[in-house]
Amino acid sequence: MRREQVEQLLAQVKGGELDVAAALDRLSFAPAESLGYATIDHHRALRQGFPEVIFGEGKDVTHLVGIAERIAERGDGLLVTRLAPAAAPALSATIPGIELNALGRTAYLAPKVPTPAGTGTVLVVTAGTSDLPVAEEAAVTSTAMGDSVARLTDVGVAGIHRLLSRTDALAEARVIIVCAGMDGALASVIGGLVRVPVIAVPTSVGYGAAFGGLAPLLTMLNSCAAGVTVVNIDNGFGAAMAAARITHA
Amino acid sequence: MRREQVEQLLAQVKGGELDVAAALDRLSFAPAESLGYATIDHHRALRQGFPEVIFGEGKDVTHLVGIAERIAERGDGLLVTRLAPAAAPALSATIPGIELNALGRTAYLAPKVPTPAGTGTVLVVTAGTSDLPVAEEAAVTSTAMGDSVARLTDVGVAGIHRLLSRTDALAEARVIIVCAGMDGALASVIGGLVRVPVIAVPTSVGYGAAFGGLAPLLTMLNSCAAGVTVVNIDNGFGAAMAAARITHA
Amino acid sequence: MRREQVEQLLAQVKGGELDVAAALDRLSFAPAESLGYATIDHHRALRQGFPEVIFGEGKDVTHLVGIAERIAERGDGLLVTRLAPAAAPALSATIPGIELNALGRTAYLAPKVPTPAGTGTVLVVTAGTSDLPVAEEAAVTSTAMGDSVARLTDVGVAGIHRLLSRTDALAEARVIIVCAGMDGALASVIGGLVRVPVIAVPTSVGYGAAFGGLAPLLTMLNSCAAGVTVVNIDNGFGAAMAAARITHA
Amino acid sequence: MRREQVEQLLAQVKGGELDVAAALDRLSFAPAESLGYATIDHHRALRQGFPEVIFGEGKDVTHLVGIAERIAERGDGLLVTRLAPAAAPALSATIPGIELNALGRTAYLAPKVPTPAGTGTVLVVTAGTSDLPVAEEAAVTSTAMGDSVARLTDVGVAGIHRLLSRTDALAEARVIIVCAGMDGALASVIGGLVRVPVIAVPTSVGYGAAFGGLAPLLTMLNSCAAGVTVVNIDNGFGAAMAAARITHA
Amino acid sequence: MRREQVEQLLAQVKGGELDVAAALDRLSFAPAESLGYATIDHHRALRQGFPEVIFGEGKDVTHLVGIAERIAERGDGLLVTRLAPAAAPALSATIPGIELNALGRTAYLAPKVPTPAGTGTVLVVTAGTSDLPVAEEAAVTSTAMGDSVARLTDVGVAGIHRLLSRTDALAEARVIIVCAGMDGALASVIGGLVRVPVIAVPTSVGYGAAFGGLAPLLTMLNSCAAGVTVVNIDNGFGAAMAAARITHA
Amino acid sequence: MRREQVEQLLAQVKGGELDVAAALDRLSFAPAESLGYATIDHHRALRQGFPEVIFGEGKDVTHLVGIAERIAERGDGLLVTRLAPAAAPALSATIPGIELNALGRTAYLAPKVPTPAGTGTVLVVTAGTSDLPVAEEAAVTSTAMGDSVARLTDVGVAGIHRLLSRTDALAEARVIIVCAGMDGALASVIGGLVRVPVIAVPTSVGYGAAFGGLAPLLTMLNSCAAGVTVVNIDNGFGAAMAAARITHA
Amino acid sequence: MRREQVEQLLAQVKGGELDVAAALDRLSFAPAESLGYATIDHHRALRQGFPEVIFGEGKDVTHLVGIAERIAERGDGLLVTRLAPAAAPALSATIPGIELNALGRTAYLAPKVPTPAGTGTVLVVTAGTSDLPVAEEAAVTSTAMGDSVARLTDVGVAGIHRLLSRTDALAEARVIIVCAGMDGALASVIGGLVRVPVIAVPTSVGYGAAFGGLAPLLTMLNSCAAGVTVVNIDNGFGAAMAAARITHA
Amino acid sequence: MRREQVEQLLAQVKGGELDVAAALDRLSFAPAESLGYATIDHHRALRQGFPEVIFGEGKDVTHLVGIAERIAERGDGLLVTRLAPAAAPALSATIPGIELNALGRTAYLAPKVPTPAGTGTVLVVTAGTSDLPVAEEAAVTSTAMGDSVARLTDVGVAGIHRLLSRTDALAEARVIIVCAGMDGALASVIGGLVRVPVIAVPTSVGYGAAFGGLAPLLTMLNSCAAGVTVVNIDNGFGAAMAAARITHA
Repeated sequence: MRREQVEQLLAQVKGGELDVAAALDRLSFAPAESLGYATIDHHRALRQGFPEVIFGEGKDVTHLVGIAERIAERGDGLLVTRLAPAAAPALSATIPGIELNALGRTAYLAPKVPTPAGTGTVLVVTAGTSDLPVAEEAAVTSTAMGDSVARLTDVGVAGIHRLLSRTDALAEARVIIVCAGMDGALASVIGGLVRVPVIAVPTSVGYGAAFGGLAPLLTMLNSCAAGVTVVNIDNGFGAAMAAARITHA
Repeated sequence: MRREQVEQLLAQVKGGELDVAAALDRLSFAPAESLGYATIDHHRALRQGFPEVIFGEGKDVTHLVGIAERIAERGDGLLVTRLAPAAAPALSATIPGIELNALGRTAYLAPKVPTPAGTGTVLVVTAGTSDLPVAEEAAVTSTAMGDSVARLTDVGVAGIHRLLSRTDALAEARVIIVCAGMDGALASVIGGLVRVPVIAVPTSVGYGAAFGGLAPLLTMLNSCAAGVTVVNIDNGFGAAMAAARITHA
Repeated sequence: MRREQVEQLLAQVKGGELDVAAALDRLSFAPAESLGYATIDHHRALRQGFPEVIFGEGKDVTHLVGIAERIAERGDGLLVTRLAPAAAPALSATIPGIELNALGRTAYLAPKVPTPAGTGTVLVVTAGTSDLPVAEEAAVTSTAMGDSVARLTDVGVAGIHRLLSRTDALAEARVIIVCAGMDGALASVIGGLVRVPVIAVPTSVGYGAAFGGLAPLLTMLNSCAAGVTVVNIDNGFGAAMAAARITHA
Repeated sequence: MRREQVEQLLAQVKGGELDVAAALDRLSFAPAESLGYATIDHHRALRQGFPEVIFGEGKDVTHLVGIAERIAERGDGLLVTRLAPAAAPALSATIPGIELNALGRTAYLAPKVPTPAGTGTVLVVTAGTSDLPVAEEAAVTSTAMGDSVARLTDVGVAGIHRLLSRTDALAEARVIIVCAGMDGALASVIGGLVRVPVIAVPTSVGYGAAFGGLAPLLTMLNSCAAGVTVVNIDNGFGAAMAAARITHA
Repeated sequence: MRREQVEQLLAQVKGGELDVAAALDRLSFAPAESLGYATIDHHRALRQGFPEVIFGEGKDVTHLVGIAERIAERGDGLLVTRLAPAAAPALSATIPGIELNALGRTAYLAPKVPTPAGTGTVLVVTAGTSDLPVAEEAAVTSTAMGDSVARLTDVGVAGIHRLLSRTDALAEARVIIVCAGMDGALASVIGGLVRVPVIAVPTSVGYGAAFGGLAPLLTMLNSCAAGVTVVNIDNGFGAAMAAARITHA
Repeated sequence: MRREQVEQLLAQVKGGELDVAAALDRLSFAPAESLGYATIDHHRALRQGFPEVIFGEGKDVTHLVGIAERIAERGDGLLVTRLAPAAAPALSATIPGIELNALGRTAYLAPKVPTPAGTGTVLVVTAGTSDLPVAEEAAVTSTAMGDSVARLTDVGVAGIHRLLSRTDALAEARVIIVCAGMDGALASVIGGLVRVPVIAVPTSVGYGAAFGGLAPLLTMLNSCAAGVTVVNIDNGFGAAMAAARITHA
Repeated sequence: MRREQVEQLLAQVKGGELDVAAALDRLSFAPAESLGYATIDHHRALRQGFPEVIFGEGKDVTHLVGIAERIAERGDGLLVTRLAPAAAPALSATIPGIELNALGRTAYLAPKVPTPAGTGTVLVVTAGTSDLPVAEEAAVTSTAMGDSVARLTDVGVAGIHRLLSRTDALAEARVIIVCAGMDGALASVIGGLVRVPVIAVPTSVGYGAAFGGLAPLLTMLNSCAAGVTVVNIDNGFGAAMAAARITHA
Repeated sequence: MRREQVEQLLAQVKGGELDVAAALDRLSFAPAESLGYATIDHHRALRQGFPEVIFGEGKDVTHLVGIAERIAERGDGLLVTRLAPAAAPALSATIPGIELNALGRTAYLAPKVPTPAGTGTVLVVTAGTSDLPVAEEAAVTSTAMGDSVARLTDVGVAGIHRLLSRTDALAEARVIIVCAGMDGALASVIGGLVRVPVIAVPTSVGYGAAFGGLAPLLTMLNSCAAGVTVVNIDNGFGAAMAAARITHA
């Protein structure tokens, strides 16, 4: 149950369209449901606009599917990230209509009532082609959160004219998510070109002294462009959630 | 010259209120001015809404004052961060009306034309009293950027009722900046309670395995509350600039 | 031979129920037995209440089984942790009655004389479902040490009402073990809510800047709740052993 | 107001010795008091048995004294740790009867009603003379919490007979706090000799690859003696608080 | 004695202008002279074109001056880097004509015969004003090595038009030295704009997660522009020496 | 299209040999071509003398082949590094004439017009046999860039006479690339023996405290031989590109 | 050819038993032989008493076997460490009589003339059974170097009586090699009990904050027992070589 | 009381030269004496040949002097390392005849009976002049332990002929201590030239990515010359103690 649905319900009660007993009934789900191996936060949608998202990594397939089922049956939508390829078939089999995205390693089921749209466009930029899986996780998540998504791909600073020739795309965005590995320099350059929020996602693309994404993480935290914020390495999901907090004021 | 001023000027030209020569004159400042030891980006205000902010740390006092003078005389306002106490008198002597803030280590001169106000309030939260200098840097910066600032102080998770009794303050904010050292756990808890943007600032408060702020930095990057973003350790300035990007859409 | 058994034996000697030669015989096991590839500390049970526990990781299967056999035949019980799935069948085949736990990666054989019960309950809390294997290792170890175990699962701080609605469970515990990965913030929040000992176990759940559990480890070491103690990453076994030191005063 | 005092008060109400209005009056302090720069958790004593302890490091002297005053006037006792030598005179001047400890960098004011005594003795062991300041912080804190304190000094493993000749002291303790820098090996050896809780405090004593206490921290986290727990580097205070959680069951 | 001088001497011997005994005399300096506390490599000039450069940091003033004297009296020139301000007067007093540079912390004495000029210009670029001391160390060293030096100051990527408007300066350089702290992103951008050698110098400018220059060091090592090379943090001297290896083929 | 080709074309226009329309036609390729998943920088050859090189690691095979095809069909040559063995057949099948190098993990297609030759020889030195894959990547890249390559293999400092007996090879080089893992000491020794540019490549050869190449990386950054520069761990490609910047002045 | 053999040969020449031409012939092997992919240091045996040892990790099987053959045919013996199981059969097939050790991952061929015996015994001690592979590498190497080897297994400090009951073994050693993972504390304890050289080998046994052997490495470098020296993580080979330097004075 | 003295005493008892009561008297010192703040290991000299050495860093002056006095009065000699300049006068005033060494930061009092001489010479080598304080600490310690000391100064690998011209000095040593900062490469080169034990001491000389001695520490641990051992950063004392273990077999 999302915040908007609860508002509507309360309005109906107020307007006499719904009696108190019925309203109570519809509000009666326990806010947190225990499955033994998990405690599902059913008020997440109410509190934050979307149900609890399942982080797939390291979860037993049975647990993963069990949690997904319980969330899905509420009808508020479902998003799974870091879905192991081996777990995907079980999920598809159990939850009809769920959409898998192999590149982004996500599974998504739309809510019955569409998620309220965010204001403006979320632009997902990548420095290189190898950053695409992270960008895809961000794009799927933004879509699930009700945001419009645009993309600008492979415009890293080694050939800066590629970026400078696309300032139009930058200018049209409400929020920009920048996914970059290696030197992570793209976030600083974009941060200096625009006034809108820039959310930097360091990726684990690179080798040697990239140290699994540590290098771009530090670059981005030390951005000389003021007001760039950073999320965890490869955390396209988190960047999109941060964008949704901005676009759903 | 800020974006709004340029817009107005162009409108005057269009409307015939200002002739081209005069307009040219007022636009004639070079976008970047070289002082030998510095290249001042005079279009920063135009591009991003506020002139270049001077990072005071490690700068020779003569250089610092020289740059400050050149920026101040444009009238678009001036902000200095990480101001060494030893450099403050020279700055005060040279730039009349500049306001020093000892706790936040800032110096601020208001622009002639007030900075456009942001939408909503920026709430600056601290986990403990020792985090106040960082919070103060954020608050001064937000004010300089035209944002309304509210504060919630010393509400760390060791006594979580202090925070839970102030959810009203959380609910009223458009953006929340969370300053916390040691375990940095406050950002996750707040991130889970609200839907608005949460910008986490790890502070260097703590000792031993806090490693100068590394501990809360990692905590915040790994926040289990989705969509929390992070800036550099002790970077109250950056957090406020990120907030301004959100409030000045 | 456990401390209690030796006490009883000495009492029998004192009371004339057992002659010296027979007592000597029963005490005659060498305190440390050499197998060539291992030196088994047979006085561990006497000194610390439970026989040497076998750390399964990195051990040759033949060595592992050989050590297990020698410990098992003393009848004081046997616990194996970090048991590689590939080594489990050989262990089961050799030691009848041993109980395998796949999730916790343990093998356990109860002692002939039950281990003395600890005072109070050990509560094992997890922040998320992915922390369950570590929690299970703790729970199996606590049981082996004679402690009563309770569980509270998936109550991480991103939805703090899940925890706050279960303060009853917290209030009933003699010792609380908190297993959490990612931001590890749960340990601080629980540490601030209770007065009993809180033992924090950082888990390797997470990715990127979680650095294999380093992030929650640092969080927990820097807990702003006073008196929280920490064990190694993923060390559910160690946490349970620390709890047993408390409950078996 | 401590838990015991509240219990007594409630009993008086129940027994008719105290009327409700009077009881209410005495319970009427707000649980959290805001000083602007601090939010004092006045229910800490009620919840955890001792008022909020002030961490002195990095606090402005005025703030420090202000907070101390407000806590002191409740009469439940006051403890300041990491007290900068420069801040001590101001504290002494404001709070009569406060006891300073230069080696341990603490200030302590006893509560009006003595803190309930813990069960058993807390033994504070140091590996070397240079570890004494940390041990002293632990000892002062334990005393403040109502625990009996014993000491065993300079018994590091380089001359292990120093420790082995004092197993009597180890045997008499209810909890053992081990403070060691450099290789931190003492915690493992003691952990293997006793069955009671061992709380290891890595100290920043050492140089070079001790990396400010990182070396003994890692040693202790990896202790081959099962069930040793660890607190932050140089955190004598935290170790004593952990001990108090054990002795005040 | 430099390589050119030895060549000339050998030519004179060959041409009969100099007899063998005299030549021997002039070549008779031991290639390495021992001062007890130092072993001066007098063939460094012969082998690498400039005498051994003295690294001033951590050297006893007496040792420093002693070594400097012995090198200076050979007439091949003298360069001291990382000169502590306290050591400068003693050096000036002992070695007439030595030029001190306070910003770059260097002392320089020209050789009697001018150092052969390198081909082309060495361009020293800085991202910000705070990087100037490192740039100055590089510039002084390049001059000492016989290179022409140009400078481009404060053109960091936060305002990339400052750099793009000066591509002329980039185009004229034979080698470019890029000094940048914080995000270190400037090296990648320049590396992508030019075909000449780019030597990146990370500086310790920044705070928090800059970790004393680690952040820009990693950025530069992971530059997405191919063929950028890196020297140690703050090592302006090393960058200039690398440039001299290129310009003195 | 390479710089030389454009120069020739412009000369033809100037000399009347080519009319403007035809010239325009041949220059009409967009400087950056978007494939959706990639933005190919077709001016890289013009700007830097060789087309964009494809970093094969982490790229989807379809993406990799698609990009390679688009670059190859321009005729300016093609280089792929870090080519996964599994991706090689698809590449060979699509691009006739491409040369695979299994040891160096590269694929190379020569340009239609030979790349201009660099001045002098690039000498690739390895400390041990295990460093050969990195050296091979460097050698293939240098050849692609038009440089002559010489090799000196397995001359690490543990048997320094192996190196000292080959100073002839060192003396003949224009640039020296030194590939070394473990202690990485070879770069310092060679740096002290020659005056030409030395580019050090730390390799991930080694174990334990080599930390995947971190040890030789730090060694090389701290080289006591002045003017040694460093590239990323295992980055033979980058070293060769840096060499080409030197040899193609 | 070993040092002893060369001495004998020179004595024969001096005594007229061997003519100069024959001696020259036998000395005529080039000191370093190039195989293209390797430069074998054939004087290693002469200089250091044993031929170059082959580090097997990361070497191509063909290269490995090729080098081994060239060394083996000199008759001075052959040792291969870190031998990949997959490479062992090829080695066995090519070099008859070579002895494989699966646990220690070594291959050894005795020299034709026995290696001179070292003085005294090398005692190899392990803290736990999981440290045995490293200990075995040390033992095989010591044997190859001509040393007598004794073993003391699984005597870690968690049960210190296991060690204290074997001080006889410690007392009889000329050199002690201590292999320990996890807390690595055993090296300090042994270092404090004996006066002979103690060489500590940190092993990668452990998990979590053992960080692949970093924890015991730091412990051992910070040993509070004076004069303990350390080699690389898991470097049993290096420890044995260090022991041989001591026993072959 | 040293081992030799006890042997002599026991011989006298055996030979009837000393009666049992007198012998007992002279042996009656407690093996460990408690000063409250320290537990002096008076059997250290007996067990390891020299009394406990005092590590001066971080010790209270009163404690330092108190411990020094108690050790000095036994007449077995006294050594203090890391002596703070401020503590030296108090030490000199209390203990007549103690020799201070400012460069090495040591204080030394010779024992009444000379320490037995070690076999052979300990050669202390430094890479640069800045390494001298560490070398001096090693040299003073070696002298105190009864070893002959030789020195070879400033022979780092940047000018390798300085070292190669002094192989005579290397050849005459029984043990070689190599002190080097920055790249630490000298240890590997020397390790490859000699067969005697090489003990490497990384120093904190250097800057930037030397990370306080971490760089040479890693270099030395990864030495490609087999059998080089390493002690802690700047630990000249430890290296000399390790040498004494070798020379006093």
